[in-house]
Amino acid sequence: MASRAFTKGHGTGNDFVVLEDPDGALELSAARVAAMTDRHFGIGADGLLRVVRTSASEDPAAVVARGAAEWFMDYRNADGSLAEMCGNGIRVFARYLLEHGLAAFDADGVLSIATRAGVLELVESEDGYAVDLGVWRRIGVDPLVHARDLEVGRPGLGIDVGNPHVVVALARVEELEAIDLGTAPRLEPMLPEGANVEFVVPAEPLVVDGVGRIRMRVHERGSGETMSCGTGVAAAALAIRHYAGEGAPDEWRVEVPGGVLGVHVEARADGEHVWLSGPAELVFTGTIDVA
Amino acid sequence: MASRAFTKGHGTGNDFVVLEDPDGALELSAARVAAMTDRHFGIGADGLLRVVRTSASEDPAAVVARGAAEWFMDYRNADGSLAEMCGNGIRVFARYLLEHGLAAFDADGVLSIATRAGVLELVESEDGYAVDLGVWRRIGVDPLVHARDLEVGRPGLGIDVGNPHVVVALARVEELEAIDLGTAPRLEPMLPEGANVEFVVPAEPLVVDGVGRIRMRVHERGSGETMSCGTGVAAAALAIRHYAGEGAPDEWRVEVPGGVLGVHVEARADGEHVWLSGPAELVFTGTIDVA
Repeated sequence: MASRAFTKGHGTGNDFVVLEDPDGALELSAARVAAMTDRHFGIGADGLLRVVRTSASEDPAAVVARGAAEWFMDYRNADGSLAEMCGNGIRVFARYLLEHGLAAFDADGVLSIATRAGVLELVESEDGYAVDLGVWRRIGVDPLVHARDLEVGRPGLGIDVGNPHVVVALARVEELEAIDLGTAPRLEPMLPEGANVEFVVPAEPLVVDGVGRIRMRVHERGSGETMSCGTGVAAAALAIRHYAGEGAPDEWRVEVPGGVLGVHVEARADGEHVWLSGPAELVFTGTIDVA
Repeated sequence: MASRAFTKGHGTGNDFVVLEDPDGALELSAARVAAMTDRHFGIGADGLLRVVRTSASEDPAAVVARGAAEWFMDYRNADGSLAEMCGNGIRVFARYLLEHGLAAFDADGVLSIATRAGVLELVESEDGYAVDLGVWRRIGVDPLVHARDLEVGRPGLGIDVGNPHVVVALARVEELEAIDLGTAPRLEPMLPEGANVEFVVPAEPLVVDGVGRIRMRVHERGSGETMSCGTGVAAAALAIRHYAGEGAPDEWRVEVPGGVLGVHVEARADGEHVWLSGPAELVFTGTIDVA
């Protein structure tokens, strides 16, 4: 039996086991990750963040990022499978690096982190940290969404922010609260890889001081309803901004069950970048015996 | 900010934060317990076990137990409220005492632990530890149980093993698996304090080598569906034993989503005592900052 140290953290309730492994020495099988993230038999988390140097990882995403980023966020889903990126996880990852003196912001106030979705830029923000999720796009398919306790199918908007989302706008908070997300919403037509589904209600009034305000619940592929989904929050703001049309704001405030996140849309030469901002907390440290 | 050490453990997936506080020095408000047991923002657990000497606690249950038991299991529900007893928690509590050298079995192989349900006796068993839950009884009301995805109401058997349970026997495993326990089953008539509701399927054949075998899912008052409920397992075995009638065994093996527990019925002068046995695991140790 070996003993392994870990840290537990979360961003708006989306929670992670953080394993520091600068030299890439850990054997992390899917079964071991699943055992550690199990909420009753293990530590419990939505996912696992391995903190490893790009120079010490043979993951293709880490190899191509050498020189551009010192640290690679090796993100695993709770079932142990590899995942590209996690909008809440990267803030927890950054806070871990910064608090443990493993990294610092550069002269421009930027911390570059290698992920399987490429090298991402993170900066400090009023509410914590903000990360550039890159250029967003419409998927090109806008499925009808059927959910339990929602009498009829509702039109969804298909949005890609690195992963696929379908966003459904609802009129009233009561409607949002009544939906049963214990079972996965059904898409018509189905998308080849599936999608996370966000149900969104605009605030009244929608825009205050130039900031659009919405409330959201999310069903994540393979995870069920979660407290928060970073990319889902970005997709939700982008969808309502799309529906709002001409003159809609570029700043959004999104309330999820686990807290509040910010979305900022920035026009650049290569398209509209979407930034996600919010808090990151380190909750406790621990030691677990592993076989 | 102070730092607090803890241990996390479970019995068949029913999991607990264990806080060692021999001298009763900790201030444990309901809000603090709820924050620590929160699965996303805290450590995460079904409940909290404070390990305190009966001589150092002013809880009436600890005071009356002085002399009869050295340690008091101060059990809290995840919402921070006080609870009488927990059939899985007491095994984790005992394992913690034994592993940390805080207690040992007496010459008769018994470890006495003070709880709000009285001083309980615990012994070693093949599958871990066995605890005497005391004398069981019928509640006197057998409500009809309505559950989502169960077409018609089913007759339940009201059983008290320190707390109230209603047990429903089903014919087939498929039926057990199909029930949606995301919403609380409805009792007709309702019981004044509510009840935990167990759905049970007998194995085929029911009895092998003198041991009755059943499978169960449970909805706990205020907690929803759980991996395991110790007293619920005892109630389930007692109900099927009642239905089986004359010649039914006194030994039972109950499969829950989180594992397997044993039930043993022992006739004594004061009535039929029900023993619950099963494993207890200590999973990890940690340190958390508390305000």
